[in-house]
Amino acid sequence: MSYQKLEQHQQQIHRLSHLSAICGWDQAAMMPAGGSEARADAMAELGVLIHQKRTAPELGDWIANAECEPLDEVQRANLAEIKRHWQDASLLPGTLVEALSLAGSKCEHAWRSQRKHNDWAGFAVNLQEVVSLSREVAQRRADALGVRPYDAMLALYEPGMTSARLDQIFGDLSGWLPSLIQQVSERQQSDALLIPQGPFPIATQQALGREVMGVLGFDFAHGRLDVSSHPFCGGVATDVRITTRYNEQEFISSLMGIVHETGHARYEQGLPRHLLGQPVAEARSMGIHESQSLFCEMQLGHDPAFLALLAPHIRTHFGDQTAFEPANLVKIYNRVEPGLIRVDADEVTYPVHVILRYELERDLIEGRIEVADLPELWDGKMQQWLGITTQGNYRDGCMQDIHWTDGSFGYFPSYTLGAMYAAQLRFALERELGNLSQIIAAGRLPEIFAWLGRHIWSQGSQHSTDELIRRATGEPLNPHWLRQHLEQRYLP
Amino acid sequence: MSYQKLEQHQQQIHRLSHLSAICGWDQAAMMPAGGSEARADAMAELGVLIHQKRTAPELGDWIANAECEPLDEVQRANLAEIKRHWQDASLLPGTLVEALSLAGSKCEHAWRSQRKHNDWAGFAVNLQEVVSLSREVAQRRADALGVRPYDAMLALYEPGMTSARLDQIFGDLSGWLPSLIQQVSERQQSDALLIPQGPFPIATQQALGREVMGVLGFDFAHGRLDVSSHPFCGGVATDVRITTRYNEQEFISSLMGIVHETGHARYEQGLPRHLLGQPVAEARSMGIHESQSLFCEMQLGHDPAFLALLAPHIRTHFGDQTAFEPANLVKIYNRVEPGLIRVDADEVTYPVHVILRYELERDLIEGRIEVADLPELWDGKMQQWLGITTQGNYRDGCMQDIHWTDGSFGYFPSYTLGAMYAAQLRFALERELGNLSQIIAAGRLPEIFAWLGRHIWSQGSQHSTDELIRRATGEPLNPHWLRQHLEQRYLP
Ligand SMILES: [Zn+2]
Ligand SMILES: [Zn+2]
Repeated sequence: MSYQKLEQHQQQIHRLSHLSAICGWDQAAMMPAGGSEARADAMAELGVLIHQKRTAPELGDWIANAECEPLDEVQRANLAEIKRHWQDASLLPGTLVEALSLAGSKCEHAWRSQRKHNDWAGFAVNLQEVVSLSREVAQRRADALGVRPYDAMLALYEPGMTSARLDQIFGDLSGWLPSLIQQVSERQQSDALLIPQGPFPIATQQALGREVMGVLGFDFAHGRLDVSSHPFCGGVATDVRITTRYNEQEFISSLMGIVHETGHARYEQGLPRHLLGQPVAEARSMGIHESQSLFCEMQLGHDPAFLALLAPHIRTHFGDQTAFEPANLVKIYNRVEPGLIRVDADEVTYPVHVILRYELERDLIEGRIEVADLPELWDGKMQQWLGITTQGNYRDGCMQDIHWTDGSFGYFPSYTLGAMYAAQLRFALERELGNLSQIIAAGRLPEIFAWLGRHIWSQGSQHSTDELIRRATGEPLNPHWLRQHLEQRYLP
Repeated sequence: MSYQKLEQHQQQIHRLSHLSAICGWDQAAMMPAGGSEARADAMAELGVLIHQKRTAPELGDWIANAECEPLDEVQRANLAEIKRHWQDASLLPGTLVEALSLAGSKCEHAWRSQRKHNDWAGFAVNLQEVVSLSREVAQRRADALGVRPYDAMLALYEPGMTSARLDQIFGDLSGWLPSLIQQVSERQQSDALLIPQGPFPIATQQALGREVMGVLGFDFAHGRLDVSSHPFCGGVATDVRITTRYNEQEFISSLMGIVHETGHARYEQGLPRHLLGQPVAEARSMGIHESQSLFCEMQLGHDPAFLALLAPHIRTHFGDQTAFEPANLVKIYNRVEPGLIRVDADEVTYPVHVILRYELERDLIEGRIEVADLPELWDGKMQQWLGITTQGNYRDGCMQDIHWTDGSFGYFPSYTLGAMYAAQLRFALERELGNLSQIIAAGRLPEIFAWLGRHIWSQGSQHSTDELIRRATGEPLNPHWLRQHLEQRYLP
C-alpha cells in the first residue's frame, strides 16, 4: 500500500531531522566557536538530503494513491499532514530557497554590528533583498495554494489562519487593549516593589531552575536544561533540550524563561509517542506551541498562587530577602510598563508589539509598503499604541530583533495567538476542574497538566487548530478570554 | 575529472560523518536515558545513508579513471586512501555487517550482567556467534585483499601491519619484558608512597583538568571536555570532544586520563585543516593515534619534570598535602604492579595484556583455537607472564572488557604499537631538541608539540605508517626504543 510507503518515508525523514535537531542544539548550547564553519557545512549537507527526501519524485503518486486507500481516522489525518508538508517543501524552486537563505545569513550577520551603530541605511539594503525574495516566495506559495500572499506565509506556521481573520481578532484587541494598558499603568504607578539583591550565582540559579522544572513535571529522563545565548526549546520529543541564559545580578527573568520553555517541553514530551516519526504526532502549530509555553509562564507562572509556591524554593537557594515575599514577587512579575523592546514586554503590552509587526509585515509582503517606509510607520504605531517614539532610534525600532532577516514573515502572529489560546484553555480548564489558583494552591498541578495532556499534547496534529481548540474549549478561538484573563489579573 | 568527483563525494561523506560523530558524543556525554531508543534508530538511519554513499556504484569507475589522471602527490595519496576506504566498505555483504552488528549488540548487552555473575558459559554462547561471523568477515576480507584472515582485520586499524611482523615485534618484547617487570617490581617493593586524601570535588577536578589541558595546548576554540562513563576522544577535527569520568575520592587517574585524551585531541586538532573533508587529512592509523595519546600520557605526563610542573596546579586546587610533592607523584604514577585488568595496567605491564590478547584473537580468527579454549589459554599466559591466575575468575579474565564482543578483532595491537611509536618518537625528538625532561622543566612544551605537529599531525594520511615513522625518526618501527624508555625510567 502506498500509505505504508509514505509512513516509512516519513520515519526516515524524522530520523534524519532528529540528528539535525540535536546538532542544532549542540551548535547553540555546546559547540566551541571554532567549530562553526565545518558544522554549518555539515548541517547544510544534511539539510539537502532531508530536502531531497521531502521532495522525492515518487511522493506525489504515493499520496494520490493513498488518498484512495482505506485508512482509519488517524491515518487519514496523518496523510493530510504528509501532503501539506510535501506541498510546502515542493512548492519552491531550490534556487529561490537558497537565495533567500544566503540573503538572510548576510542580513543577519551584518545586523550584529549595524544594530550597534544604529545603521538603518546599511540594514535597509540587506533587508530589501530579503523582502524581495520573500515576496517571491509568498507569491509562488499563494499561486499554488490559491490564497493571498501573506496567508500563504501564515500557513507555514499557523495552518488554517488567514489575515482576514487576524484583522478581525486583532481588531477586537485594538478595541480594548489600549485603554486596559492605560488603566493598569495608572493603577500600578504608585506600587512600590522591592528588587531582589544579587549576586545570584549561576550554578545556584541552574539548580533552582531544575527544581522548578521538576515542580512543573518536566521529564528529565527525556530532556535537559542547558545554556545558550538565545533561550529555546529544541531537540526531539523523546529528548527535549531547553536552554536559558543567566545573569548573575538577576534571576527573575531567566527563572521565568525556564518556566516558559518548560511549557514548550511538556508539549513535546506529551505528544503521542506511539505515532512517533509521523507528522500526525507532531505539534499542531506555532500558535499552539506558544499557547503551551504561555500557559506555563503566564497562566500558571505569573499566578499569585504559583509565585507563593515558588517563594520557598527561591529562599532555599538564595536565602531570605523581603523581596522574595510572594506579594512582592507578584508585583515584580506582573508589572506592566510600555517599552520599545518586544522580548522585554510584559503580558499586557506584548500584543501591541505583535499587532504592529503583523500589520507591517503583511503590508510589506503584499507590496503595499516598502522597506523604506518602515521606520516612520513603526514610530507612528508605537506613538499611537504606547505613547513612545522610536524616531531616529532604529536599533530599538525595526532593527531590534532578527525575526525578519531570515524571511520568517508570517510568524509574529503566533505569539499573540498563543496568548489567546492559553487564556481560552485556562477558562475551559476552570469550568471542568475549578479555579486555577486554588488548584495550584492545593498542590494539584499534575491535574492541570493531565488536562492539557488530554486536550492538547496527546492530540498531536490529528485535528486542525480550530477543531483542536473547539474540542478542548467548546468554541473556536475567541479573544474575549484573553481580555477576561487580563482584566481579572490586572484590574481586579 | 573523476578525481574531483571523488573529492566532492568524500566531502559529503565527511559532512554526514561529522553529524554522526557529534550525535555519538552527545549519546555518551549528554543524552538522557529515555532518549536512547529513538537516537539509536536515527543513528542507524544516517549510518545506512553514509554506507550507501561509501559504496555508491559509480565509485569503482571514478577511482579507476582517477588513477589515470594527472594528480599531484597529495591527491595521489588521497586517492589511495579513498580507494582503501571504498574497498573496506564494499567488501562485505550488508547482511553480514548487519548480522555481526546484531550479534555484537546482543553479546555486549548480556555481558553487562554476565560479567557481574562470572557467567562464562552464558557469555561463551554469544561470543561464539560473534566469532563465527567475524571469521566470515575476516575470510572475505582476506580473499579480497590476498592476505591472511587476521591480517585482513589488522588492515582496518593499522594498514600495512601484518601478523608476521607483529610476531617478530612482540617476540622481541617477550625476550626482555618479563625480566624487566620482575626487576622493577623488586626494586619498587620497598617504596613507600603517600596516597592523596580526598574528597576531591568533581567541579574542582574539572577545573584542574581544563587547566592542565591548557598547559598541554588543547585548543578550546576547537574542542571541549565533558563527562562520560567511558572516557574517549570524539567529535571532529574542528571540534574535538574529549571526555573523562570522575571519582570524588581519587583524582590521580582521571587527571592522567585527561592528559591521555588531550594527546588524541591535539593530533585531531593538528591534522591538515586545508585538506579537511578528504581521507588524506585524517589520522594515519589507530596505532599512530594511540602514539599521540601515549606520548602525552607516558612520555610527557609521567615524566618527573612534568609531574613537578603539575604539582603547583594540584596544590592550587586541592590545598597542600605532602602527597602532592613531585617525588611522591612520580612514585604514584610510575608504580608497576602486575594485575589482571588491562585498563588498570601500568606502562610496563600493559604490553603483556596486549600480547596475550593478540595471540588469542589471531588464533581465534584463524580457527586454530575455539571460544571454549579461551579461559585455559588465558590463565596459562597470565601465569607465565605475570605469575597470577584467572582460574575460575572469568570476570577478570576473558570477560573483563567488551573489546571482542563487537567483532573488533585486530584492534588490540594498536595499544602497544602506539606505546612503541611514542617511545621512538621521543628519542627522535630528543636527538633534535635535546633531553625531554629538560625541555619540560624549561617550560618549552610548545616546542615539543610543534615537533609532533610537524612530523605527525600535519602529515595526516599522506604517507604509509611505516613511511611516516621513518620520516619522523629515521627508521621503521623498532621496539628497542620502548625498551630504552622503560629501562631509563624504571631501572635508572
Ligand atoms: Zn516560546
Ligand atoms: Zn587512547
